[in-house]
Amino acid sequence: MHPMSELLQPKGVRDFSPKEKILRDRVIRTLTEQFERYGFNPLETPILERYEVLSAKYAGGAEILKETFRLTDQGERELGLRYDLTVPLARFVAMNPNVKLPFKRYAIGTVYRDGPIKLGRYREFIQCDCDIVGADAPLADAQCLQLALAAFDALAMGVTTTVNSVALLRLMLTVDGVAEERLVETMLSLDKLKKIGEDGVVKELETAGIDGGVVRGIIAIAQLATTAERLAAVRERYGATPELARLDETISLVADERIVFDPSLSRGLSYYTGIVYETFLNDSQVTSSVSSGGRYDGMIGSFCERPGEYAAVGVSFGLEPIMDALALAGDTGRASVLDAYVIPIQTIRESAEIAQKLRAVGVKTDVDLLGRGISKNLDYANAMGAPFVIIVGRRELAEGKVKLKDMRSGEEELLSPEELPGVVATRLSGA
Amino acid sequence: MHPMSELLQPKGVRDFSPKEKILRDRVIRTLTEQFERYGFNPLETPILERYEVLSAKYAGGAEILKETFRLTDQGERELGLRYDLTVPLARFVAMNPNVKLPFKRYAIGTVYRDGPIKLGRYREFIQCDCDIVGADAPLADAQCLQLALAAFDALAMGVTTTVNSVALLRLMLTVDGVAEERLVETMLSLDKLKKIGEDGVVKELETAGIDGGVVRGIIAIAQLATTAERLAAVRERYGATPELARLDETISLVADERIVFDPSLSRGLSYYTGIVYETFLNDSQVTSSVSSGGRYDGMIGSFCERPGEYAAVGVSFGLEPIMDALALAGDTGRASVLDAYVIPIQTIRESAEIAQKLRAVGVKTDVDLLGRGISKNLDYANAMGAPFVIIVGRRELAEGKVKLKDMRSGEEELLSPEELPGVVATRLSGA
Repeated sequence: MHPMSELLQPKGVRDFSPKEKILRDRVIRTLTEQFERYGFNPLETPILERYEVLSAKYAGGAEILKETFRLTDQGERELGLRYDLTVPLARFVAMNPNVKLPFKRYAIGTVYRDGPIKLGRYREFIQCDCDIVGADAPLADAQCLQLALAAFDALAMGVTTTVNSVALLRLMLTVDGVAEERLVETMLSLDKLKKIGEDGVVKELETAGIDGGVVRGIIAIAQLATTAERLAAVRERYGATPELARLDETISLVADERIVFDPSLSRGLSYYTGIVYETFLNDSQVTSSVSSGGRYDGMIGSFCERPGEYAAVGVSFGLEPIMDALALAGDTGRASVLDAYVIPIQTIRESAEIAQKLRAVGVKTDVDLLGRGISKNLDYANAMGAPFVIIVGRRELAEGKVKLKDMRSGEEELLSPEELPGVVATRLSGA
Repeated sequence: MHPMSELLQPKGVRDFSPKEKILRDRVIRTLTEQFERYGFNPLETPILERYEVLSAKYAGGAEILKETFRLTDQGERELGLRYDLTVPLARFVAMNPNVKLPFKRYAIGTVYRDGPIKLGRYREFIQCDCDIVGADAPLADAQCLQLALAAFDALAMGVTTTVNSVALLRLMLTVDGVAEERLVETMLSLDKLKKIGEDGVVKELETAGIDGGVVRGIIAIAQLATTAERLAAVRERYGATPELARLDETISLVADERIVFDPSLSRGLSYYTGIVYETFLNDSQVTSSVSSGGRYDGMIGSFCERPGEYAAVGVSFGLEPIMDALALAGDTGRASVLDAYVIPIQTIRESAEIAQKLRAVGVKTDVDLLGRGISKNLDYANAMGAPFVIIVGRRELAEGKVKLKDMRSGEEELLSPEELPGVVATRLSGA
């Protein structure tokens, strides 16, 4: 094994180099800051779960179980790698019946799916989830929508959020004459409206033996210009139902033009019970949703002794499409975290002391460790993206000075080692 | 499965409730800040690795492999869960021969060992590693020592770091007459000096058929009062060897009283090639080391095409003993991240707007979602540890006011909704 015959990562997993990781950490920090502003608290659960929990009736379902990595421990217990963060949340809530409700938690962590690898699909990837357990107020739904908008504001990304209620949609389709047992199929076809158009949806339904005409009313509403017009049209055609009133109230609590009601939207039909939403980037080549979620009042309770108490609503953020959008926008991040790089010229000891003084005031600092010449060291500092270089020469030091070089402007100045840390810290803070 | 017959986590893994996770995150943020100040950059590698990589000749060794979780993917590839962060680092460096040297990286992530569970030993636990690859200067060693001291300063924990050089120790024992093939055994016994005392070490060696007298010289030096005296005694007895000069230079570069030379210290003998160190808390019931590391010049190169270029030194932090020490010191952290909790009294819409204004200035804010009365809401805010509560009543609102309650002092005051966010943000910043 020297060199190793096949020195590779497993299929579908990735390394993140410092440059990539610095950018990912920046996005995760931005999201975390917003999650906490909205009153979500961090919860961490293990990556290993009992297979019994992962395969529970109301958990991920057969599709996901096929893609679940399985293993056993030394005690021959059946384990699996978690495939999402919601089943562990349900297990945690069930195991901690005294948890204060509403329980608002966020979790950011890797999940695992042993599925086919396509562009943008990985076997290890990060999910960023916020959920509110134990509150069925429309304001809980509104908070999830507001959080998504705030998060993309913080990331300086223009977005639109499409919302619907699967409870309302079921009701509308039932009024339009769709039989209970064909509802899910009909909703799945309707959800493809943007992709395949009205005729495509009708055709798909008729192939399945469903009268395609039943969806034309809803499609006509989805094609009205504004959310207000669409809500009014639903009210006119299907009446002022509690399902509509709730959706209307939620949208009105958010009070943001970026929220668009689309009665054709469906998501996770075995799972969601009320509002559903998807957020897309405006003017981006990234066409997959960057955030999505909805209300799922049944699932968490199914793990618990008192199932009725665990109404839940959540919003999840897609780190991969967000990173893709940043890359497309030319934001590739910094090569290193370095603020300052110290180049000793036969002054290792003094340079090490100067580095320590810079660190003490919060300046991220490194010192040449290889005894390279100035020119090679400047190349290295440049490659690392360090904004400041400090050259510590014997002669200058004898005169009580070191040289500070601003790598962006190229300007150089002589400063005393005592004043240096304050000057660098001040410039970095942009003051 | 309702309720689930055995709703448990796998053996040896843990959930971290918000309260626990907030405290862990605070410690991790503090460590990360120091890692970056010392010029280490983040690297993330997957938790899944090929078993071939994990079981490579110079990787963890047979002991660790016995405790490695193994699994296969759908393509029947042999995989394992990483048991440390160093083997993945070696793989990354080997796969990226153009990585700029020195490569200073930190990694904070979970690792997995399917071993026996004891107090403080888990099957999923976090390692926090900093390594410098491609630099053999004593200053690289010194940086690791300085980083450990800075990290515990930042955590406000008093520590002592014990250092030795396994290269120097081998040389001393050889001079004292220990045969090459008995060196490792002798060093392992010597390392128990603090636990079993001089007589214990001598007895253990003689049981193993080694002349116990050979270690008395080194033990006598280890019992001298100061690092300076011990270094001088080694010089006198074993000569001014390059191994001693290097250790002396490193200690002198760190220039910190908390660094103590102990010639009886040994660690990871199949792995370390030069300096080794362990950091312990002063005056704490936590007796295991909270940080440790050393120089290991052989291991990373063993994965690479040009083995000679990958001198390496690193320092690792033990999150679990640090958390234990914080708990013993009574630092149990906050129940939630909340800065402010808004209680609507039939003012849901206005309260939601006030919460949004608080969030916009960075105040971590939640609003009652259950329509509870004031007293139950105050209990909830108290349980969450929110320092501020805002009570939004109909009558006050009609007069353009809301009530701000400081939960620590109990003081209440009436403020306009416009001035509220600024007042809360200012008080939180401690200004």
